Amino acid sequence: MKLSTKHLLGIKDLTRDDIQLILTTAAQFKEVLQRPVKKVPSLRDVTIVNLFYENSTRTRMSFELAERRLSADVLNFAATTSSAAKGETLLDTVNNILSMKVDMVVMRHSASGAPHFLAKHIPAAIVNAGDGINEHPTQALLDAFSMKEKLGRLEGLKVAIIGDIMHSRVALSNMYLLRKMGAEITIAGPPTLIPKYIEEALDVRVEYNLKRALQWCDVANVLRIQLERQNQPLFSSLREYNLAYGINRRLLESLGKDIVIMHPGPINRGVELDSDVADGPFSIVLNQVENGVAVRMAVLYLLAGE
Amino acid sequence: MKLSTKHLLGIKDLTRDDIQLILTTAAQFKEVLQRPVKKVPSLRDVTIVNLFYENSTRTRMSFELAERRLSADVLNFAATTSSAAKGETLLDTVNNILSMKVDMVVMRHSASGAPHFLAKHIPAAIVNAGDGINEHPTQALLDAFSMKEKLGRLEGLKVAIIGDIMHSRVALSNMYLLRKMGAEITIAGPPTLIPKYIEEALDVRVEYNLKRALQWCDVANVLRIQLERQNQPLFSSLREYNLAYGINRRLLESLGKDIVIMHPGPINRGVELDSDVADGPFSIVLNQVENGVAVRMAVLYLLAGE
Amino acid sequence: MKLSTKHLLGIKDLTRDDIQLILTTAAQFKEVLQRPVKKVPSLRDVTIVNLFYENSTRTRMSFELAERRLSADVLNFAATTSSAAKGETLLDTVNNILSMKVDMVVMRHSASGAPHFLAKHIPAAIVNAGDGINEHPTQALLDAFSMKEKLGRLEGLKVAIIGDIMHSRVALSNMYLLRKMGAEITIAGPPTLIPKYIEEALDVRVEYNLKRALQWCDVANVLRIQLERQNQPLFSSLREYNLAYGINRRLLESLGKDIVIMHPGPINRGVELDSDVADGPFSIVLNQVENGVAVRMAVLYLLAGE
Repeated sequence: MKLSTKHLLGIKDLTRDDIQLILTTAAQFKEVLQRPVKKVPSLRDVTIVNLFYENSTRTRMSFELAERRLSADVLNFAATTSSAAKGETLLDTVNNILSMKVDMVVMRHSASGAPHFLAKHIPAAIVNAGDGINEHPTQALLDAFSMKEKLGRLEGLKVAIIGDIMHSRVALSNMYLLRKMGAEITIAGPPTLIPKYIEEALDVRVEYNLKRALQWCDVANVLRIQLERQNQPLFSSLREYNLAYGINRRLLESLGKDIVIMHPGPINRGVELDSDVADGPFSIVLNQVENGVAVRMAVLYLLAGE
Repeated sequence: MKLSTKHLLGIKDLTRDDIQLILTTAAQFKEVLQRPVKKVPSLRDVTIVNLFYENSTRTRMSFELAERRLSADVLNFAATTSSAAKGETLLDTVNNILSMKVDMVVMRHSASGAPHFLAKHIPAAIVNAGDGINEHPTQALLDAFSMKEKLGRLEGLKVAIIGDIMHSRVALSNMYLLRKMGAEITIAGPPTLIPKYIEEALDVRVEYNLKRALQWCDVANVLRIQLERQNQPLFSSLREYNLAYGINRRLLESLGKDIVIMHPGPINRGVELDSDVADGPFSIVLNQVENGVAVRMAVLYLLAGE
Repeated sequence: MKLSTKHLLGIKDLTRDDIQLILTTAAQFKEVLQRPVKKVPSLRDVTIVNLFYENSTRTRMSFELAERRLSADVLNFAATTSSAAKGETLLDTVNNILSMKVDMVVMRHSASGAPHFLAKHIPAAIVNAGDGINEHPTQALLDAFSMKEKLGRLEGLKVAIIGDIMHSRVALSNMYLLRKMGAEITIAGPPTLIPKYIEEALDVRVEYNLKRALQWCDVANVLRIQLERQNQPLFSSLREYNLAYGINRRLLESLGKDIVIMHPGPINRGVELDSDVADGPFSIVLNQVENGVAVRMAVLYLLAGE
């Protein structure tokens, strides 16, 4: 089985079969990661560059671990210590890297579409590790893997995505993926943080009342409030956001049913999630992190085989 | 033989047998480091994260070399390029790292007690590479290794620790270790940089006169003046400090005996040590650096076996 | 065959035979880099530190890749996260690194002569990856390799070096190398950016008119305008520089002959090179980058054998 694409730029470009193949392959790698020897020689002669133009602990580290578990050669570049500071164009930077015989580029960039631009111009496989407010495809894949692992299926699953939908690449990738796999989606959050026309454009329901969204869903995927990406703050304070859209234990207990809580991290404790929920029995936040390594191994492995 | 602890948080928690075991194991690794092939496969399937919230050349590099000589998989994280900048809690950061199946965390943090806090909450082994003004246990172990290598014993050895005792984690770890191993300690420095009650609390002698301290000792462990950690500068200038507590060749020659000079680095030349001493025949400063790799290999090896 | 030197500090110190040996060895490594398995075990038990006191994407990455292709153990140090910030002297930093049993140091430093200073004091092999406005020897070697690969010879080749000669370590290393290998050199650029007496000192011709220089040469090695190194800007704007000394397709076509275009990167597009030249059929800019890895493998391999 092969992917229908030579890059992973976004979930938008994947077929249902692609997603299925990645999830199945990830399940096999997850088994590898439970063993004492967590390494496989699959990518022994593959060189991968991690090119991060935005800060990130967990995503960069998750990719780096995935690459090392696959025995790839890994090089790390952070934009602050790179020629980017000298005004070199993105294409020049990457062309230079590729001239050095690098096989794959994992990149994060603050400009939406940066990896798509590169993919048009260079032969190496590109994995999008987050581009602006566009997509974060491996996050959506690990979210889907984690939901399926916990609840057994994606088809027909009721997923609420909660928070700043407007600026969230995690939300967009999740919506694309879940719709392709037959899940139902409700998005919830303050009206100013939910794009107009999203219902028709993406075939999702919108719900401004948090409690009703939670009562409806099997899984709540709670987004991080990213103050740095918002131009027009709705709420005068994070406290106010917490009162209207934060999730705490008392609220969960009032639902009369169990729901699964997810979060892409890093969590703003006391803002979108209170600690009694983040660390509580319904949270699978740390499972998501663990699954991230397996999912990224699957993506890198499948693209390297192209 | 095993350590009595699963972490290395501080010398305070170690038994005399623990210290002895680390020093003996380090001696074996030091032999390995003299060979053309300096690598052993001991930690081949162990993944170690170096998590440095404070800058450091020598300590981070020494740990990284130790880890690679043991064939571990190594990941480096500096706080400036991490989620710490996004306000994530320390515990969340480390829990995330651990969810990725990391076996050990080597951490340096500006807050005293940070590694102890983590050790209470997470299952992986933690090695303290310096926490605030509390401890720097591997420095004390390599200092002890270097003294024993040079002078044949720790028991009964007379060690002067000189400088800013108040703010020095190196001093505190050294005092714990040397007292456990039966050495005698005199601390020397300006009165405002020596904590009150230290004589009873740690069973050491205090001497405000540098020359008398040097005449008494076999070894002088000279601390770095860390201007960044001092709130109340005693001396109006570094020159003044050098005149009262700096060590130069003329002073050493006036002692009528040979003493060993140690320094944890980086040296402020012309402040606490003049160059004719730092580079002179009594200095074992570079031996300390060399021994640091062997001692850290021993610590990592012994903790990984837990 | 052996090099006549144990360091690579500058082209100035190399013999003609040294240069020949490096280029021949690089050609063998270039063949290795065309194979699916690009790695050789040559430096398996060699530890190399990359010590970069100035930012660099391509040079650091090229060295790091060369080191990994040779199976060396690699440690990276950037000055901003090192003890340099604590005021440690360069010699102390490097002595410390060497005490940890490191075999080679690749260093870039903003001070001309920094690697020469170290080479006098320490036993490890030092490779200069750029020192101030002095030399950048591996760049000159990869430039020579690329010229020879493209045009078959260096002897008698006519090379124009164009731009800010005054502040360019690339220019100086190229001039030393090309004269040793029997090429002819014309330097071209604004009068204020060309040192007086350079004709006698380095046995080169000076030409202030760009078109005449291009009509004369087989190869034009176009330098980057490094605004950060200039104290006295000649041109009121980069646009003005582009009008007088920038190279575009129309100019090349007006020459009535084909010449090869080189650039050490990163390119200021629209300043010293227009995009229709940088990406055009005469440009071998990306070949230079590719050859850089092979040349650096050769240098490291030959020095490690000393």
